[in-house]
Amino acid sequence: MIDHTHDAARRSWVASARGHPDFPLQNLPLGIFSHHGDTPRGGVAIGDHILDLPAALELGLLKGEAGLAAEAAAGRSLNPLFALGAGPRAALRTRLFELLADDAPPAVQALGPRILRETAACTPHIPAEIGDYTDFFAGIHHALNGGRLFRPDNPLLANYKYVPVAYHGRASSIRPSGTPVRRPEGQRKLAEEAAPSFGPCRNLDYELELGIWIGPGNPLGTPIPIAEAHAHIAGFCLLNDWSARDIQSWEYQPLGPFLAKSFQTSISPWVITPEAMAPFRLPQPPRPAGDPAPLPHLLAEYDQSHGALNLALEVHLLTPVMRARGMAPQRLSRAGADKLYWTVAQMMAHHTSGGCNLNPGDLFGSGTISAPEETGWGSLMELSRGGRQPVQLDSGETRRFLADGDEVIFRARAAREGFVPIGFGECRGVVAAQPERPR
Amino acid sequence: MIDHTHDAARRSWVASARGHPDFPLQNLPLGIFSHHGDTPRGGVAIGDHILDLPAALELGLLKGEAGLAAEAAAGRSLNPLFALGAGPRAALRTRLFELLADDAPPAVQALGPRILRETAACTPHIPAEIGDYTDFFAGIHHALNGGRLFRPDNPLLANYKYVPVAYHGRASSIRPSGTPVRRPEGQRKLAEEAAPSFGPCRNLDYELELGIWIGPGNPLGTPIPIAEAHAHIAGFCLLNDWSARDIQSWEYQPLGPFLAKSFQTSISPWVITPEAMAPFRLPQPPRPAGDPAPLPHLLAEYDQSHGALNLALEVHLLTPVMRARGMAPQRLSRAGADKLYWTVAQMMAHHTSGGCNLNPGDLFGSGTISAPEETGWGSLMELSRGGRQPVQLDSGETRRFLADGDEVIFRARAAREGFVPIGFGECRGVVAAQPERPR
Repeated sequence: MIDHTHDAARRSWVASARGHPDFPLQNLPLGIFSHHGDTPRGGVAIGDHILDLPAALELGLLKGEAGLAAEAAAGRSLNPLFALGAGPRAALRTRLFELLADDAPPAVQALGPRILRETAACTPHIPAEIGDYTDFFAGIHHALNGGRLFRPDNPLLANYKYVPVAYHGRASSIRPSGTPVRRPEGQRKLAEEAAPSFGPCRNLDYELELGIWIGPGNPLGTPIPIAEAHAHIAGFCLLNDWSARDIQSWEYQPLGPFLAKSFQTSISPWVITPEAMAPFRLPQPPRPAGDPAPLPHLLAEYDQSHGALNLALEVHLLTPVMRARGMAPQRLSRAGADKLYWTVAQMMAHHTSGGCNLNPGDLFGSGTISAPEETGWGSLMELSRGGRQPVQLDSGETRRFLADGDEVIFRARAAREGFVPIGFGECRGVVAAQPERPR
Repeated sequence: MIDHTHDAARRSWVASARGHPDFPLQNLPLGIFSHHGDTPRGGVAIGDHILDLPAALELGLLKGEAGLAAEAAAGRSLNPLFALGAGPRAALRTRLFELLADDAPPAVQALGPRILRETAACTPHIPAEIGDYTDFFAGIHHALNGGRLFRPDNPLLANYKYVPVAYHGRASSIRPSGTPVRRPEGQRKLAEEAAPSFGPCRNLDYELELGIWIGPGNPLGTPIPIAEAHAHIAGFCLLNDWSARDIQSWEYQPLGPFLAKSFQTSISPWVITPEAMAPFRLPQPPRPAGDPAPLPHLLAEYDQSHGALNLALEVHLLTPVMRARGMAPQRLSRAGADKLYWTVAQMMAHHTSGGCNLNPGDLFGSGTISAPEETGWGSLMELSRGGRQPVQLDSGETRRFLADGDEVIFRARAAREGFVPIGFGECRGVVAAQPERPR
């Protein structure tokens, strides 16, 4: 359902929101922020400002169902809001749109200084207490690219087209955009080495993923039918599944990735709501001829017609050399979320199909999003062919994997003719060297 | 350090504690309970009773450092207690020992009715809010038995003797002993089938594991050195890593077990403290000739001399037929925790070695504990050779895997000459049939 909150003729009285690449009036993402280091609380991004939800509540601007949602979003985490589901969240959006549109009463606009904070003076926080984090593997071109490196004769395993493959990730080490990522130490063994050694990761990588926040969820033992799954999506973000490739290849058999992924995961701090993404839904692309149809519990008409996202995701890299020369970050890849083999609803129906319970504030990663063509490969492992073919940068440098001081920047944007495009904001992280430690 | 709280000559004035197989005066495990359905709160098991910590605090029986620990343990979860570390926890133990020993002042003993609740009238709860749950694979005989089924020519992978292999598990579906476990549905494909189908698990199994509760933990980016790891163990429990073998074999490549394990994990509700286990520490058995030494970051003198536990773990099975005939549960296996290839401190040092942060209330599973000999194999998959050789029961029945109505009961006991043996209490779960659902 696309309502008047996507009317492209409407603009905000918040000047910076007009033409803003990420946060125009039609986006209104939710998050948790602190202002000059004060208590973290809920807010809404609008242009270069954040609307302070507790302040707006105190001024009596948010009442009824919208007020209920704002109260649930006003504290230190959005978990209570996520638990409420779509109704109150959509009511809050509608009311925020009225308050921030340029035909809002002058008395409301006059309250600007009391309810708006400059984003530059704010710190973003993780928007929810993450109970459990699950990382999927739904990017089939990434799965193929990775599989070709590890198993040239059998790149895609037999279960891939039946099972939305996933593993449990580490929730405790998820950090907001801007937190440096320390190069991990770990056990790694090159093929030509007789035994492993312990030391700093030599093949540090990023993975471009879509993050999905979980809404109401389900009790243990009661699966979410796929036809109801969309109601349990609380929103979207960008997710960098930082990966230590050398640690990964040594540790991952037979139980999957562990320390190669759990040293840190970065997310963009703003929760892009399903309501904001409503115009940017696409039919799930038909499967290639010869692929099996999804099993019945993973198939629903609405999901097949609306399950994909018209969202372009990008990776940019800023090296210390580029930074010193004042160069802009260089784009390494760009791919569409519609390249995912499985929809979010299919992930959710699968995850709960055996009875596993999801809770508000749980997080999914989509798996690395790569396009079929090289310009859309979402990790350095893919771009450098497992490190064998260095990537040439405009600065004259090359990269097999990430160097200390490199900053990785993800961006995402949804666009459609006749609608105001919206963005996700950035997911950034700079690679920090492993500190010297006494041995 | 073994102090006077293990004096075998001392007995409790709580009559049921004398000679109690699990909870004599020398154990004093902590947990969260509710009494006739009232508010969950902290307590201490003593014989067939639970000492109500808030009640004891209110009566002024717990002061100073012991009082600090009791306050931290008096709420709805033990996370605050776990965060305090060993000092306050040991002080609480010492004070509880004084209060419950039979030379306690008559005025204290007279308070019995006000501080003790009958366990039979209480409900056990999960003792902590579990942030992250990690399941290790440290039972080498289980790894060998499982490996022989899946990879007869290569049962133990090359990394096993270097890496304490583990995967992230699902925290949301951990339930206390006594919660029925519903047979999950899922995708499964037999080798002779062309495509998978969706339906109830046909090969439901248990896995006998030791659970480890995490204490203070570490900040992101700061590993716990192995020499300090013991200070971060908050306690022990029993853990049943219920496993859907048919779902597992279809889903687990390449990212590890997921839905085959996450439908439910059961734990015993009492936290057996490191102080209670102090007399039952053993040197880690020497590695077999030819095995590599642990890498330096996994090796510490104290851990090598005290890292193993003299703890016997048992699996018992009660089928509906046995129940109807009034038969006792039948023991299926018995194995010592000293059969683990990796110590808990090695698991913890490994887990944090790349910087991953552990938080108070995180939980580890040891991996299935199997002895070398068949009488000590900790899962039906092992006992039935992957389902090919049914297990003969005393009731005349056989089992390849679990049937609906079967109840699996884990018990554990630590014993040593000159000390009062202690037990863990039970970890029980009955298999509930998958309910009929509209398709």
